Amino acid sequence: MEDIKIFAPATVANLSCGFDVLGCCLDNVGDEMLLRKNDLNELRITRISGQDLPMETHKNVAGVAVQALLKQLDFTQGFDIEIDKHIKAGSGIGSSAASSAGAVYGINKLLGEPFTVKELIPFAMEGERLASGNAHADNVAPALMGGFSLVRSYDPLEVLALPSPPKLRVVILHPLIEVKTKDSRAIIKQNVNLQDAITQWGNLGALVSALYVEDYELFGRSLHDKIIEPVRSILIPYFDELKQIAMESGALGFGISGSGPSVFAMCKGDEVAVSVREAMQLFYQEKGIDFDLHHSEINTQGIKII
Amino acid sequence: MEDIKIFAPATVANLSCGFDVLGCCLDNVGDEMLLRKNDLNELRITRISGQDLPMETHKNVAGVAVQALLKQLDFTQGFDIEIDKHIKAGSGIGSSAASSAGAVYGINKLLGEPFTVKELIPFAMEGERLASGNAHADNVAPALMGGFSLVRSYDPLEVLALPSPPKLRVVILHPLIEVKTKDSRAIIKQNVNLQDAITQWGNLGALVSALYVEDYELFGRSLHDKIIEPVRSILIPYFDELKQIAMESGALGFGISGSGPSVFAMCKGDEVAVSVREAMQLFYQEKGIDFDLHHSEINTQGIKII
Repeated sequence: MEDIKIFAPATVANLSCGFDVLGCCLDNVGDEMLLRKNDLNELRITRISGQDLPMETHKNVAGVAVQALLKQLDFTQGFDIEIDKHIKAGSGIGSSAASSAGAVYGINKLLGEPFTVKELIPFAMEGERLASGNAHADNVAPALMGGFSLVRSYDPLEVLALPSPPKLRVVILHPLIEVKTKDSRAIIKQNVNLQDAITQWGNLGALVSALYVEDYELFGRSLHDKIIEPVRSILIPYFDELKQIAMESGALGFGISGSGPSVFAMCKGDEVAVSVREAMQLFYQEKGIDFDLHHSEINTQGIKII
Repeated sequence: MEDIKIFAPATVANLSCGFDVLGCCLDNVGDEMLLRKNDLNELRITRISGQDLPMETHKNVAGVAVQALLKQLDFTQGFDIEIDKHIKAGSGIGSSAASSAGAVYGINKLLGEPFTVKELIPFAMEGERLASGNAHADNVAPALMGGFSLVRSYDPLEVLALPSPPKLRVVILHPLIEVKTKDSRAIIKQNVNLQDAITQWGNLGALVSALYVEDYELFGRSLHDKIIEPVRSILIPYFDELKQIAMESGALGFGISGSGPSVFAMCKGDEVAVSVREAMQLFYQEKGIDFDLHHSEINTQGIKII
């Protein structure tokens, strides 16, 4: 195989009570990437469309992730990477993760799959380290594996694939304002109240149970974040009102996607998702804030060859 | 029905990463209780054997729990309660919970089951409030429901029943020293490091997953407590050595049961459980510390009529 074209999906990380450990993969929001062997013994980013991002390999998240992979293999094959960005950088739905995960997935295919998909996670995390200063896994893992991913441990890295209830739909509203991941991390308190932490882990345990038994209402009740959301939501215009509107329109749960500013509403079925989407859209239009909207199933496959 | 005799099981609460929210029910360790209607319109504790506990209804956990139940029903039927305690008070394996849960379970049966078993939890929690100053549910819930119980929320109370992998065995070592629940709570820090909390909820999410997919090794890896165990273990003689011995003998995981001083070792199958039990026994005998030992399956039924 000389070249490969892939769809690299957007993802929702920091899923409420699962801050830093739980993410899920979206289906119809993502980048397209073309990866091709070259004869130059050199890794190049040859084209990026849709976003203004660095072309230098060592400054580009896809470049850095692939370099980590090639270094592990001690391999000198050169590659060209073209990226059509459809996920906006800084949106909070895993833009850097899509590029990092997509790049290592594609290169691994071109090399005859020396690594399993799960083994690609640490390489993709190097792209995250470049993007945000923190090599988190809760975007790249669901981008690579699809569905819901739980990071049990970072040292050693252990990521679990969790089941996805089939009727789950995700509505994403991306306010077109800039919130940098680094800034969004900086406002988080490094000490938390024990009672709040207990509430958080009780909810995360229940959320995992809900995924196994396909209890949508329990899933919704468990999407509760006492620790991060109260702090970060102040960076998102009308967060409380949006949440109320989404819940009143039938959403199971609502929260901040990644480090924001995107917010997500989890819904059971497309009918509810449409109601939620339209209500949020109307509200933001009235407020005069620009935004993007996405409405997606859970992508249980992850990256797709197209 | 005029009287009922029941087995009220011991339980392991505060299961490592599931501090305050996760407990499980033991099978061959528990009290026996005889509950009988009387014609006196009065609730009486008529006999307690095995432990020196208050006979006054309002000072006894079983009495207080039943009073809460009867108050809800606005009922004037009188009852006599006899308790044969086999679980030592202050052992950390749910002695007060067994009495509280057993009493409300039995009385509910004698009254024709006006409440479901799950609805009995808040009444039994009143016994816990009397015993420890804290109406926690992670002992009384598994005592009543059997198996593993997860407390998603205390306000409102929501308790989930989780599956029990069939080969799981629990070895309990109870050092015969006194650690009061109130004291054991007092040494816990009320603020925790966010990174430690993230590790904790990642592990709890993975532990819940492990119960569903019957992955014993994952269950063991997830039995990890960065927050409470490091503080409370100092109250338990040779905790670190015991843990090492249990793990080297093949235990899946090891931790403090309830608020101690009992410790638990989770094992896959009876053969490993016997090895673990014998190794801990030998070590404590060499150290000259008195102890009780229990070796149990997970009791998936909870309280049993005998």
